[in-house]
Amino acid sequence: MNKLYIIKIGGNVLDDEKSLKSFLKDFASIQAPKILIHGGGKIATKLGDQLGIQSQYIKGRRITDAQTLDVVTMVYGGLVNKQIVSQLQAHHCNAMGFTGADGNLISAKKRPVGEIDYGFVGDITPESVNSTLLYFLLKQNVIPVFAPLTHSEGVMLNTNADTIASVLAISLSKHFDVRLIFCFEKQGVLTDVDKEDSVINNLTYSLYQDLLAKGSFHDGILPKLENSFSAIQAGVKEVLIGEHTHLLANTGYDTKGTLITQA
Amino acid sequence: MNKLYIIKIGGNVLDDEKSLKSFLKDFASIQAPKILIHGGGKIATKLGDQLGIQSQYIKGRRITDAQTLDVVTMVYGGLVNKQIVSQLQAHHCNAMGFTGADGNLISAKKRPVGEIDYGFVGDITPESVNSTLLYFLLKQNVIPVFAPLTHSEGVMLNTNADTIASVLAISLSKHFDVRLIFCFEKQGVLTDVDKEDSVINNLTYSLYQDLLAKGSFHDGILPKLENSFSAIQAGVKEVLIGEHTHLLANTGYDTKGTLITQA
Repeated sequence: MNKLYIIKIGGNVLDDEKSLKSFLKDFASIQAPKILIHGGGKIATKLGDQLGIQSQYIKGRRITDAQTLDVVTMVYGGLVNKQIVSQLQAHHCNAMGFTGADGNLISAKKRPVGEIDYGFVGDITPESVNSTLLYFLLKQNVIPVFAPLTHSEGVMLNTNADTIASVLAISLSKHFDVRLIFCFEKQGVLTDVDKEDSVINNLTYSLYQDLLAKGSFHDGILPKLENSFSAIQAGVKEVLIGEHTHLLANTGYDTKGTLITQA
Repeated sequence: MNKLYIIKIGGNVLDDEKSLKSFLKDFASIQAPKILIHGGGKIATKLGDQLGIQSQYIKGRRITDAQTLDVVTMVYGGLVNKQIVSQLQAHHCNAMGFTGADGNLISAKKRPVGEIDYGFVGDITPESVNSTLLYFLLKQNVIPVFAPLTHSEGVMLNTNADTIASVLAISLSKHFDVRLIFCFEKQGVLTDVDKEDSVINNLTYSLYQDLLAKGSFHDGILPKLENSFSAIQAGVKEVLIGEHTHLLANTGYDTKGTLITQA
């Protein structure tokens, strides 16, 4: 099968103009089908502040009320997405920006109200993906760029970008050998969050279970690891986690990040 | 050739929630390939005001400085576009939202600085359209929804929605019999702007020239008429101008609007 790169970037790349430019140049130079998923970064919070909309958090999770939904739809789906797309176009990379609503590419279920009402948040599974249309677009040499937004029953929904990346990866693994890459601010998955040289280069499922039991991982990396292993277990060929400057140029296995492969 | 509907809506539909809902329901019910182009409406101005960004106009034309460009990219490309797309999806219409940057569907030239510096404004011609990709998308039953934005050399550009509609119509008239529909607040092209019953039902090129020479048209309609006749002269089959509630249900010729056809 052909290789497909699915790459997720977050705030540390998006919020730094120079870093974003350098990332986009590297991304454009990948000579294979590829998909980019971006988070939102600080711009949404900044715009919300300017408009007097307070970001509400419960247990570390952002609550998306109607006003916040408008802000993230503007910032993620409009400003950030189109800036990335236009810059990639300048690198002759035929990027096309999407939310999950576009072409019904990712439909979601609005998260049910339980102990917490998360507001306009969408939960997704690999079955949420319109992989037929997405595959057709990739075949046309289109490079999809996803904002972290989905939809359900006529409304937009806020959805975690890491989850979108892994769900896309799983759904497309029937057509491609998928390498899912999570770019973040660290060199990889660390056994000691304060030591950049404690990168685990190859993280197997049994090592993951061991370290999890010992409580060796920093809380911040846990959702990413869950996303990674569920992707691997569902057919994604490999997951790579680390800092973007070291991940993209190198398409082999001697990488500085953390590589997770099928057992 | 197959028929293609290209429909442009502006502020009078976008700024009124009920009107927009009714329009989108009618639009979704058209059983033929179709493209929607939307303007921006008052939301961009309102957001600009809230952020303390003054809209600048010279000779009635909005000047797009860097801050205004960010606002219109957010509002037109994000909020308005995605609200329309998600609502159309709820009507089982497989809408996909675009700016000209997406898939390089409409590339532009930044308007040269002359007597006036319009700022980040893009000028386009029918050759600006990536009609190959657009045609492929239509063949996949995708319904393109365009925001009034284009791009050039890595930056987004503000572009008149009427112009986008006519340029798309011209460019696709090699594949389809195009009916280009401009929805606005009047029942059609009026000989007396204060009398809704002065609608010209069939506007030929010679009548247009006559009335133009007599100064019978209201200034506001002139750019729309120029766009219409240049579209007709470049191969678009018919142009219909009027109020949306009367234009969409009726796909025949006994319409309440103004119909312009090839001579």
